[in-house]
Amino acid sequence: MSVEVTRLPSGLTVVTENMPRLETAALGVWVAAGSRDERPDEHGISHLLEHMAFKGTSRRNARAIAETIEAVGGDLNAATSVETTAYYARMLKADVPLALDVLSDILSDPTFEDGELTREKNVIVQEIGACEDTPDDLVFDLLQATAFPNQAVGRPILGTPDTVRSFTAKKLRAYLTRNYHAPDMIVGAAGAVEHAAIVDEVTRRFASFAGAENLVAEKAHFHGGAKVQKRDLEQVHIALAMEGLPQKHDDLYSLSIFTNVLGGGMSSRLFQEVREQRGLCYTIYAFHSPYTDTGMFGLYAGTDAADAPDLMRVVIDEIAGAAETINEAEVNRAKAQMKAGLLMALESCSSRAEQLARQTLAYGHPIPVAELVAKIEAVSVESARAAGRALIARSRPAIAVLGPGPGLESAATIAESLGRRAA
Amino acid sequence: MSVEVTRLPSGLTVVTENMPRLETAALGVWVAAGSRDERPDEHGISHLLEHMAFKGTSRRNARAIAETIEAVGGDLNAATSVETTAYYARMLKADVPLALDVLSDILSDPTFEDGELTREKNVIVQEIGACEDTPDDLVFDLLQATAFPNQAVGRPILGTPDTVRSFTAKKLRAYLTRNYHAPDMIVGAAGAVEHAAIVDEVTRRFASFAGAENLVAEKAHFHGGAKVQKRDLEQVHIALAMEGLPQKHDDLYSLSIFTNVLGGGMSSRLFQEVREQRGLCYTIYAFHSPYTDTGMFGLYAGTDAADAPDLMRVVIDEIAGAAETINEAEVNRAKAQMKAGLLMALESCSSRAEQLARQTLAYGHPIPVAELVAKIEAVSVESARAAGRALIARSRPAIAVLGPGPGLESAATIAESLGRRAA
Repeated sequence: MSVEVTRLPSGLTVVTENMPRLETAALGVWVAAGSRDERPDEHGISHLLEHMAFKGTSRRNARAIAETIEAVGGDLNAATSVETTAYYARMLKADVPLALDVLSDILSDPTFEDGELTREKNVIVQEIGACEDTPDDLVFDLLQATAFPNQAVGRPILGTPDTVRSFTAKKLRAYLTRNYHAPDMIVGAAGAVEHAAIVDEVTRRFASFAGAENLVAEKAHFHGGAKVQKRDLEQVHIALAMEGLPQKHDDLYSLSIFTNVLGGGMSSRLFQEVREQRGLCYTIYAFHSPYTDTGMFGLYAGTDAADAPDLMRVVIDEIAGAAETINEAEVNRAKAQMKAGLLMALESCSSRAEQLARQTLAYGHPIPVAELVAKIEAVSVESARAAGRALIARSRPAIAVLGPGPGLESAATIAESLGRRAA
Repeated sequence: MSVEVTRLPSGLTVVTENMPRLETAALGVWVAAGSRDERPDEHGISHLLEHMAFKGTSRRNARAIAETIEAVGGDLNAATSVETTAYYARMLKADVPLALDVLSDILSDPTFEDGELTREKNVIVQEIGACEDTPDDLVFDLLQATAFPNQAVGRPILGTPDTVRSFTAKKLRAYLTRNYHAPDMIVGAAGAVEHAAIVDEVTRRFASFAGAENLVAEKAHFHGGAKVQKRDLEQVHIALAMEGLPQKHDDLYSLSIFTNVLGGGMSSRLFQEVREQRGLCYTIYAFHSPYTDTGMFGLYAGTDAADAPDLMRVVIDEIAGAAETINEAEVNRAKAQMKAGLLMALESCSSRAEQLARQTLAYGHPIPVAELVAKIEAVSVESARAAGRALIARSRPAIAVLGPGPGLESAATIAESLGRRAA
């Protein structure tokens, strides 16, 4: 392993891993700013900024940004989430300096030109329309709003057509200046990269970023409840959430193992019971997303309208049952999957650059693989069950149900009974 | 490079690449059988077979199949397409023999047990429902049917609820016996694998497969025309196709470069003109899928109902214009992207195993990277333009439009004018 970390005087951290024999590399900038850092009148501005970064700088217009990276066969992309915004590139070894040049250019010197801004707002309104047409995306927007109502963390990342259309260049610049500070930015790189060279480039090219580490956003409050939306669809799309654990919580790995046993793969309880034994769905899975101050345990299933209440009954029984009866074989299987996943990620420069950057964002430094493996190994059958019981007791569930009637309300009511069981 | 190929006496071919320093591997079985090999009364049976392979053998029930591979942290999956069905796994180095054992078991000895069959049919009916709720999937089913009406190649791979429910174990076995012959099967592996060991395992474990190479399915006839389906959606989803080129055609790479310049990335003409200059969509891209005896050039865009005719006009102009005015910078950029894509795929064991297997399926042997690079390099500005002009002249377009009115018919009519331009 050759992971190296350098914290620049500005507070920006560079973390890299040289992967021998690779001829390509992946690198990116991960910023600790996302939709929950938006003020009430900024709903959707993190995502608009991510788009507008590609729309021109003093040195390059939008077309030149795209052409510069694609002329060398590279790939440039970005993504906005609740707590982070990432800008990343994949390229051949020789083009690492070029990719850093482009990334630093679009982040430090975006011009937010009027015509580009108007057009890009329209692109995002189209993106919102596309999300509306994708029920298994949309149901998660409903879920997030049910879990965290009246809070930035509970709002759709894309914003609404009205909020997006309201933003000006001035407002974008205010958000950028307030949130993109050097101590909140990580440059992560992996593959055919040399740490010293990357540090040198970053020192020079990201010099305009300064500032103190950002205050943590307003504390999130998990609320729960049910949101039912009738739609003329083929399937009922069901998403369920309970309050999970923050990134640095001691029980994080126990809850991850619980979640994996419950809905992590083909051998998971939900897949086996709901899909394999009963044929009630095509897709069903569970996940856990940790945030800085809280977390979200979530679950998705799509099913026939007629089967929705049945499916929900089985799902609720499985969650409650797992917290009591998870066994050693299941825990060992979940551990094997998590450990193998770590090893596989080590062999992909894109996964590795992202992993290193996200660890550094969360913990201030990358976590050695051996330490992660030890944390996974330390989970016991009892700690996984306890994490499940604590999950059920921690919050009332949040439920979002989207699709054709008449079983929607009934499915939602059944899901809410999970909270009463724990009481 | 350490690509090795062995053709067994049965005709089954094993192709591997040992990738030094890797601790994990990817391997799979690629079979030259897919939806277009189905008889009229078998619509959807290729995909049902792919599902039923996981539902039990003499040695393992469905749960044991899932548990066996996930207990070692491995991953097992499968996919059915028009001409191929793939079963593949990702695992740690030590578990390569186990993965080959499971894959050979599920392909050579599936039991098609009645209860499992009934449940799995229901799972697929749910999958069909999920596809119905995903307009950017569904519009491609409409497109395929418009391009190739009344032919197996034009039917949805999933089948319909009625056809899926009609299948019996006997019918599944007949399809399997007719299509899964040793000369139509490739075992591909890459990563921490040893060719001799894989050949040894495959020889032993796949011994039950024999038979002669399958006849090519009925020749596909590209027809074209328009299919408009009114739906209460946010966006109009537009897919357009023209007859492309078969896998072994001399002009394949010229057409690939044309397609890439037109709609391959952020710097492509469609992305720049439709999204960046006009803000008419969030998603727009073009692709070319070669089959054995024909090919399909395709294009997708999602847009506002009000903008659909406008968008279609721009798209048609861009296709026609590209065939006349593509320039050297664009061709060079497309070449750089294709070459870099090849190099990046070389560093991922999953991509590499699939690439080697698919090349062997198409050409009888893997193609050295240098040979692929030479084919890309050989494309000229003139040959790319010529491929575009030939594309426009080769067929009338097929158009599928799905979404809210009233611009649907008008968009379809505009698209059909592309054919008249070439005349």
